[in-house]
Amino acid sequence: MLDTTPRGALAALVADFESALVAQDASTVSELFLETGFWRDLAAFTWNLKTCEGRDQIAAMAAAQLPQIVPKTFALDPGEEVGHADGVTEGWVTLETATGRGVGYIRMKEGRIWTLLTTLHELKGHEEPRKLKRPMGAEHGHDPNRQSWTEKRISEAESLGYTEQPYVLVIGGGQGGIALGARLRQLSVPTIVIDKHPRPGDQWRNRYKSLCLHDPVWYDHLPYIPFPDNWPVFAPKDKVGDWLEMYTKVMELNYWSSTEAKSATYDEAKGEWRVVVMREGQEVVLRPRQLVFATGMSGKANVPRFEGQDIFRGEQQHSSQHPGPDAYRGKKVVVIGANNSAHDICAALWEGGADVTMVQRSSTHIVKSDSLMEVCLGGLYSEQAVANGISHDKADMIFASIPYRIMHEWHVPQYDEIKVRDAAFYKALEDRGFLLDFGADESGLFMKYLRRGSGYYIDVGACDLVIDGSIKLVSGKGIARLSETGVVLADGTELPADLVVYATGYGSMNGWVADLVSPEVADKVGKCWGLGSATPKDPGPWEGEQRNMWKPTMQEGLWFHGGNLHQSRHYSRYLSLQLKARYEGIATPVWGLDAPHHLN
Amino acid sequence: MLDTTPRGALAALVADFESALVAQDASTVSELFLETGFWRDLAAFTWNLKTCEGRDQIAAMAAAQLPQIVPKTFALDPGEEVGHADGVTEGWVTLETATGRGVGYIRMKEGRIWTLLTTLHELKGHEEPRKLKRPMGAEHGHDPNRQSWTEKRISEAESLGYTEQPYVLVIGGGQGGIALGARLRQLSVPTIVIDKHPRPGDQWRNRYKSLCLHDPVWYDHLPYIPFPDNWPVFAPKDKVGDWLEMYTKVMELNYWSSTEAKSATYDEAKGEWRVVVMREGQEVVLRPRQLVFATGMSGKANVPRFEGQDIFRGEQQHSSQHPGPDAYRGKKVVVIGANNSAHDICAALWEGGADVTMVQRSSTHIVKSDSLMEVCLGGLYSEQAVANGISHDKADMIFASIPYRIMHEWHVPQYDEIKVRDAAFYKALEDRGFLLDFGADESGLFMKYLRRGSGYYIDVGACDLVIDGSIKLVSGKGIARLSETGVVLADGTELPADLVVYATGYGSMNGWVADLVSPEVADKVGKCWGLGSATPKDPGPWEGEQRNMWKPTMQEGLWFHGGNLHQSRHYSRYLSLQLKARYEGIATPVWGLDAPHHLN
Repeated sequence: MLDTTPRGALAALVADFESALVAQDASTVSELFLETGFWRDLAAFTWNLKTCEGRDQIAAMAAAQLPQIVPKTFALDPGEEVGHADGVTEGWVTLETATGRGVGYIRMKEGRIWTLLTTLHELKGHEEPRKLKRPMGAEHGHDPNRQSWTEKRISEAESLGYTEQPYVLVIGGGQGGIALGARLRQLSVPTIVIDKHPRPGDQWRNRYKSLCLHDPVWYDHLPYIPFPDNWPVFAPKDKVGDWLEMYTKVMELNYWSSTEAKSATYDEAKGEWRVVVMREGQEVVLRPRQLVFATGMSGKANVPRFEGQDIFRGEQQHSSQHPGPDAYRGKKVVVIGANNSAHDICAALWEGGADVTMVQRSSTHIVKSDSLMEVCLGGLYSEQAVANGISHDKADMIFASIPYRIMHEWHVPQYDEIKVRDAAFYKALEDRGFLLDFGADESGLFMKYLRRGSGYYIDVGACDLVIDGSIKLVSGKGIARLSETGVVLADGTELPADLVVYATGYGSMNGWVADLVSPEVADKVGKCWGLGSATPKDPGPWEGEQRNMWKPTMQEGLWFHGGNLHQSRHYSRYLSLQLKARYEGIATPVWGLDAPHHLN
Repeated sequence: MLDTTPRGALAALVADFESALVAQDASTVSELFLETGFWRDLAAFTWNLKTCEGRDQIAAMAAAQLPQIVPKTFALDPGEEVGHADGVTEGWVTLETATGRGVGYIRMKEGRIWTLLTTLHELKGHEEPRKLKRPMGAEHGHDPNRQSWTEKRISEAESLGYTEQPYVLVIGGGQGGIALGARLRQLSVPTIVIDKHPRPGDQWRNRYKSLCLHDPVWYDHLPYIPFPDNWPVFAPKDKVGDWLEMYTKVMELNYWSSTEAKSATYDEAKGEWRVVVMREGQEVVLRPRQLVFATGMSGKANVPRFEGQDIFRGEQQHSSQHPGPDAYRGKKVVVIGANNSAHDICAALWEGGADVTMVQRSSTHIVKSDSLMEVCLGGLYSEQAVANGISHDKADMIFASIPYRIMHEWHVPQYDEIKVRDAAFYKALEDRGFLLDFGADESGLFMKYLRRGSGYYIDVGACDLVIDGSIKLVSGKGIARLSETGVVLADGTELPADLVVYATGYGSMNGWVADLVSPEVADKVGKCWGLGSATPKDPGPWEGEQRNMWKPTMQEGLWFHGGNLHQSRHYSRYLSLQLKARYEGIATPVWGLDAPHHLN
């Protein structure tokens, strides 16, 4: 009897899809999608992060990959509900291939697949030691050669990097490197994470003192140890630093503090890197097979060049170097830029008694923190979401299930709502001369983040200081040069300054590669981040996924990891599994690895 | 219409009970219990930890307390299932009084209450800042006098204990002091935890190197931050130490390391203590109103006196001082005692190449770790229990709902099963001469733990070494004296020794009070721990609860906290709420505080 419930209909489609997958029938697989359907795969079928758009791309991918991936099962998760609204039926699936198990999320429209997300969650025979598989700890019985846990840890720490080589070297030990290091540890992949700071968490501690996370706690959990229920909604930077430090310790990372990478060369013949690092002043040569840059998705600091920077008598700092307001009470400060860091720094300087001017050179997207939480994030990442059974792991999957090509369609209505909700606020900013935008297609903050990683401020109070004139605003005027005593605008006005802060953002992550490996390898892998949306700072053609992040690059053995806490939590899963598969010699046929369109 | 389902019947009884409570009708309250019913209350009705046994005690307590406590509601928790088996119907209740909210667990037999557990979970108006009430972290808006989180923490650390006095001083910063300190922190009660070691966790790190927790991970979680899913079943001591250290930091305890209490005096007139402590070599005088001893429920080390201890030429150590086997390869060691520490130390010494003899002076209860997990603990504390929806918080409540008077009836059948299951193992031990017992009433390990805190070994391998003779065993022979070269038994046999380890246990916690406050105050509060079961080392009369633990004592402002990780997690909740109520000036009429029957 035909089951005409939404669940029944979805189950029937899923069953047909399973049959086609198992039969490795690429043509039927693609026909089960809408003509304009999407299949986003995270390492389960493509050994890549890839969105196939439309039946042709899906058929091509399936034809290439199914014979190698050998799908085994694909089924609705019996423990999860099926949703049905506005002609779309959606639900959770589980899947198995020859070498792995995974989870997926499917949306059905008009009887066919509209969107499909498939993700790899574990490798068969290499499952993480969790829950029933957790280690015993105490080794019962007796063994005259027994080493205690501490002795083993010490022995590993003494040998790894010296007499034993790590399989993976992660450069950069902020939240990204730490989350990835924790996953690789759980997967038993010998890994060293290096960082130039003296202690894990210093990446946060060293920032300006008023800094708090701009994303709420529900969005920020690390893998394995979620923040406790009393954790602040927006955690102060030092508290984040302390958490990262304890996490590094209790997750037993091999983390080399006070260590800087000096050079890296890839030996194609041996298939390994030669990386020279300085560890607490001593040179150590490491030979990992895989090298991960987790140096911050923001890449290297962008400091604009102006005539007169050499004659200016005051201080000049990039925002990443700014220590906070304490030394600047009563001083005149010009902050160049109008994004997150610029606003935070201006507000803290004003609170600290400085005379602050913000110079806005181009329009900025502003969204109030409350509105962002309530209108945009709350459905997936909030106390209410948790109460509704949407854990952050589930939220990550739902979020990932929306193809980037159409993601803005989800976001535009949210920002339309925010424009109404906060109309008086936006008008007051514009009356002050502040240049506003909501992104090239009015899709707001997260799309800007994905496309260019900049161009916005999540308002936690600084806008009121701009509106009431406490923070002076200069907008829409170019900067001509610096004088000995200040910043001279294009119209000749001089802004006197004791300090100029360049809150002018960051370059592409492959800039780190240029410095450490070579400009040639940096160009070979090309620009990092962005979707190819043909919007400002994200040139086309369309890529469909973020460039070079968490997936194979054009340089063998070279990987990029980064992003906010949400991304580094979620995507570290797929990056760690890609590395683990290579470590174990499991075949990883990569689909759709292409040369870059942009160098930086 | 009469609801004759188990849930309906239990709901009817609960409704009658609620009516009687709200009417403050002690007589009806008591009549709703079986003649032999039990009401165990943890701070909700008695501001004490108290089990009322039988209708008379219940009526007396209710008559005294209900007018002061003013019950408001008492109802079945609509979100929880009701169980029904063997004539007993049971389920979860929620309750509210004039000042607090709580949770309970009820068992109904023959239409009346057989057992009732009531517990205080929060004080109205003083709820913990969790989930929806969690702090914001970032203070949105702007404030020229804003202090960052770090500045506030530094300022608090500099003033507390110097210009500001703590309300509570906790002496001892092991798992007990730390768990209590975390709860008091969440309740905003100004608290200092002091500990003599240089770092939190050193209490564990400094023990013998093979030490692992003998209780499994599901039983050992701290409040607020549970261990992650990859945590070992039996965590090695240094890993526990590291966890405690990070926990102390991220839970923001005011924890004074390298600090020892030198003396404490209670000023009855002022209602405060004067406690002299040495903090990193500097004397500091603290004036807390509440003083908590969390110095280890095991109390001070018991070192037996033998003739010849002064002439023995080798080393002598209490088990708490033993560093592990490394220095004793090829040496002869006599370990006096046959409980947990003795077995662990003997096994580690044998593994380390020492010649080890265990001297068993009286019988010991032995249970294999696997059997303990599978037969006794698994239903409440295991991966399976978690999968069944029994979180450790729920398990704590179910465990606490069984009155101590009849708890052995639950345990005896489990140990009957274990005797059969491990019959060959026990026979092999007895064949070797090992003296076995299962407790005075065959109720096994946990009752021994509650009654005397000693007299058992959870076997994780040492027994095989006893059985095969690797660890030499001398049992049932008294010790006459030490010679210059060894231990001389009552029959004249001499056991040559380079090292004698006294694994001879610990005294009562009030011994710490005798040293720090005065012998008079130690006698005033009397013996700690034990139930008054009239079994060895737990003299009657029956007390019904553990003596002096986590509840008011005969000395105003003096409290004891301790126990294993399970107890220190669970009972720190009630102790912290008792302290918080006093801090806030909420009336705390204590029912049933009596003079002690035993001094130590």
